[in-house]
Amino acid sequence: MSYKRNLTMLTDFYEITMANGYFETGMDDTIAYFDVFFRRIPDGGGYAIMAGLEQVIDYLKELSFSEDDIEYLRGKNAFSEKFLEYLANFEFKCDVWAVPEGTPIFPGEPILTVRGPVIQAQFIETMILLIINHQSLIATKASRIVREAGGRPVMEFGTRRAHGNSAAIYGARAAYIGGCAGTACAIADIDMGIPALGTMAHSWVQMFDSEYDAFKAYAEIYPDNCTLLVDTYNVLKSGVPAAIKVFDEVKPAKKGIRIDSGDIAYLTKKARAMLDEAGHEDCAIVVSNSLDEYLIRDILHEGACIDSFGVGERLITAKTEPVFGGVYKLSAIEKDGNLIPKIKVSENVEKITNPGFKSLFRLFDKDTDEPLADLITLDGETIPEDGEYEIFDPKATWKKKTVSNFYAVNLRKPIFIDGKCVYNSPSIDEIRTYCRKEMDAMWAEMKRLENPQTYYVDLSYELWKLKNDMLGNKTDNR
Amino acid sequence: MSYKRNLTMLTDFYEITMANGYFETGMDDTIAYFDVFFRRIPDGGGYAIMAGLEQVIDYLKELSFSEDDIEYLRGKNAFSEKFLEYLANFEFKCDVWAVPEGTPIFPGEPILTVRGPVIQAQFIETMILLIINHQSLIATKASRIVREAGGRPVMEFGTRRAHGNSAAIYGARAAYIGGCAGTACAIADIDMGIPALGTMAHSWVQMFDSEYDAFKAYAEIYPDNCTLLVDTYNVLKSGVPAAIKVFDEVKPAKKGIRIDSGDIAYLTKKARAMLDEAGHEDCAIVVSNSLDEYLIRDILHEGACIDSFGVGERLITAKTEPVFGGVYKLSAIEKDGNLIPKIKVSENVEKITNPGFKSLFRLFDKDTDEPLADLITLDGETIPEDGEYEIFDPKATWKKKTVSNFYAVNLRKPIFIDGKCVYNSPSIDEIRTYCRKEMDAMWAEMKRLENPQTYYVDLSYELWKLKNDMLGNKTDNR
Repeated sequence: MSYKRNLTMLTDFYEITMANGYFETGMDDTIAYFDVFFRRIPDGGGYAIMAGLEQVIDYLKELSFSEDDIEYLRGKNAFSEKFLEYLANFEFKCDVWAVPEGTPIFPGEPILTVRGPVIQAQFIETMILLIINHQSLIATKASRIVREAGGRPVMEFGTRRAHGNSAAIYGARAAYIGGCAGTACAIADIDMGIPALGTMAHSWVQMFDSEYDAFKAYAEIYPDNCTLLVDTYNVLKSGVPAAIKVFDEVKPAKKGIRIDSGDIAYLTKKARAMLDEAGHEDCAIVVSNSLDEYLIRDILHEGACIDSFGVGERLITAKTEPVFGGVYKLSAIEKDGNLIPKIKVSENVEKITNPGFKSLFRLFDKDTDEPLADLITLDGETIPEDGEYEIFDPKATWKKKTVSNFYAVNLRKPIFIDGKCVYNSPSIDEIRTYCRKEMDAMWAEMKRLENPQTYYVDLSYELWKLKNDMLGNKTDNR
Repeated sequence: MSYKRNLTMLTDFYEITMANGYFETGMDDTIAYFDVFFRRIPDGGGYAIMAGLEQVIDYLKELSFSEDDIEYLRGKNAFSEKFLEYLANFEFKCDVWAVPEGTPIFPGEPILTVRGPVIQAQFIETMILLIINHQSLIATKASRIVREAGGRPVMEFGTRRAHGNSAAIYGARAAYIGGCAGTACAIADIDMGIPALGTMAHSWVQMFDSEYDAFKAYAEIYPDNCTLLVDTYNVLKSGVPAAIKVFDEVKPAKKGIRIDSGDIAYLTKKARAMLDEAGHEDCAIVVSNSLDEYLIRDILHEGACIDSFGVGERLITAKTEPVFGGVYKLSAIEKDGNLIPKIKVSENVEKITNPGFKSLFRLFDKDTDEPLADLITLDGETIPEDGEYEIFDPKATWKKKTVSNFYAVNLRKPIFIDGKCVYNSPSIDEIRTYCRKEMDAMWAEMKRLENPQTYYVDLSYELWKLKNDMLGNKTDNR
């Protein structure tokens, strides 16, 4: 099976309806600005991890409409021939800025901005959101799980429960960015360099007359690295004893057992004692049974003896909260050479957007390199790094803080300029290393699972004032 | 962006490790039987819907290992050259039986069985599960949502929150099988014939100087079918009045409003009254705001005035329970011409498998065509349809029922014989119609959301006895 097909038409139909509409109204070339941001961190967490930019770039580079696509649209009898001709000769012209993959991100931040002719900038909404929502969801979940594993490697084992093939492949990629050590998914290794490994299923054991026969055969074929699945029949009464016998006989260079069912805390403690007593202190114990960050925290707290984790369905589907709610909102247009900021109001205060063309800075302490706060400004604002600088909570403006001895990093990089890609995606290992470094520097208080501290995301005074002025002009909204 | 690549290597690495192991032990040609089944219905529901078979067929037809795949495996220094040569010349030889897409399915039923050389039958586990788990999950969720919508069309609107591109595309397919009227996802229309539609986003409205200007422009471009999004600013104070004005002026042939935020029950009732008073009784009201089967039930119960639904993230991710737990378990091998049944025991009784090569029947009442029960038998058993037949609960054997005046339908069709596909997938519309027909015939009591009646899935006496005899032989398991 394969999906050998350009994905330009993987778009909500309304993007096409609107594109034709912009064309028909003569607004197609109006320059518009769209921000990608999210409103809430999944699982009530304290942070999210940006992921998916490389695939967004691939998508934008390959934007084109085939003859079949055009023919399909013509068949709808709703679009003008001039518009279809425009699509047939489509040439991408937008600018894109984005936060690099692996960066910790927070609600309200413009993690990606598109500037360009509205007919184009609108059209690419669906796939940009699809890719970033999916990969950021899984990278964030992986980061939470890896953190609770406390340094023990976590393998992504969820391929068979992923939501289709690209959920498996790009899910493995995002999990690796978030800190997983590798994946069970072989194609993710071939195509993206995510280390893949795996040993045996229960069926291997069942194919032999006895568990011992199955283990012996496996160990003789794979003496370099031999992990035996010990829970097909009974972990402590048959699995572990058979594994010990085979380890004694075959003496594999690297050895492990995997437990995939039962009470992991109890079984791993007992198995550890049996292995140690038999002189196999170097035998690793791998566990993999519907785990997530909460279960890992709890069984380690109980003293489970675990060297590494395989995490499947609850990671690859982000089971506890499988939606990353990134949105794509108009923030400004250009008219007669002027920038006209746009705002989306809502009864729900959280849903009100930040108007204008914006920048995103992270302020770091000069001495410790610890992040102090993030700051969303209007484009072109400078942050005075030399003296003192007052930041404030945009929703509770009396919550103020004066920062000094800091430096400001512009978190967003130019990705496309006038439709040309100007960004070289780092390697997957560089992204993963960057993510770990950035997360290590972050406040410990915002990493806990329950009631984490809220990281500061402030608006500059200029942006805050613009927003408030625009809201003030919208009266009679209740 | 595209994924132009055969997906044979989309597999858990352990399938490859085991395949090489079977080869090395000379067991590669041993004939093995694997069953796909699931243990629990998501959301505590009373039924699930089979989906994904067409993509499983595509995958199996295209199984092949490229030179790059072989080179990758060679680089692992763990596999024999003879094995790699086997893969390079791979020819699929298995038999496959499966339940057609759109069929209501229940826990424990062998919805798909593979028979073939274990080296092959094992290898295809990952993708078979991946595809069937994903599409059955979404088809089941869609069926629940559509049922609560009570005949009102439900559109699948979740592309931007899907877990990657194939989650969007095949999710739209599965949602359509489960009863959705269509999708927002254009590519699913082009490639699979799922009707796609969509009108405008908030950004369309924001691009104009006023809501009225935006609606007027849209209605003039699309007078045949004009649905206006009325919640950009204020539904009742500006959105609906502007829509009414435009409807009065442009008189579109088909008209609707869409509400995407706020209290849907309240707003639709008020909007309905305003539209009716203005003489637009024929204006449809579409709603789309983080809906699922529970919310739809509740707002309809409150008297919301809704003509159709757009359901996004909670359908495309099956948010309330995003995992369909299909598994792939060895049930038998052939040795010296004899069938040797295999069983996987577990401390957890639900996880014990049904041994042997099996068939799956649905018994229907001859007069009403209502399903009476499903029956799993050993292959070759005949069910006496003429007289009386006693069925019993396999876990509570005192729960017996004598059925008569029934006919038995073998639910599974041959899909591959000796590696050749012998099945023609029905069209997507045929599958959808079949699904509706089968679900309509099912007991009303098993369709409710809370505490549905458990449908009967019984074992034949022969199968029950085999299972119990095999379990009896496994002593000392606690």
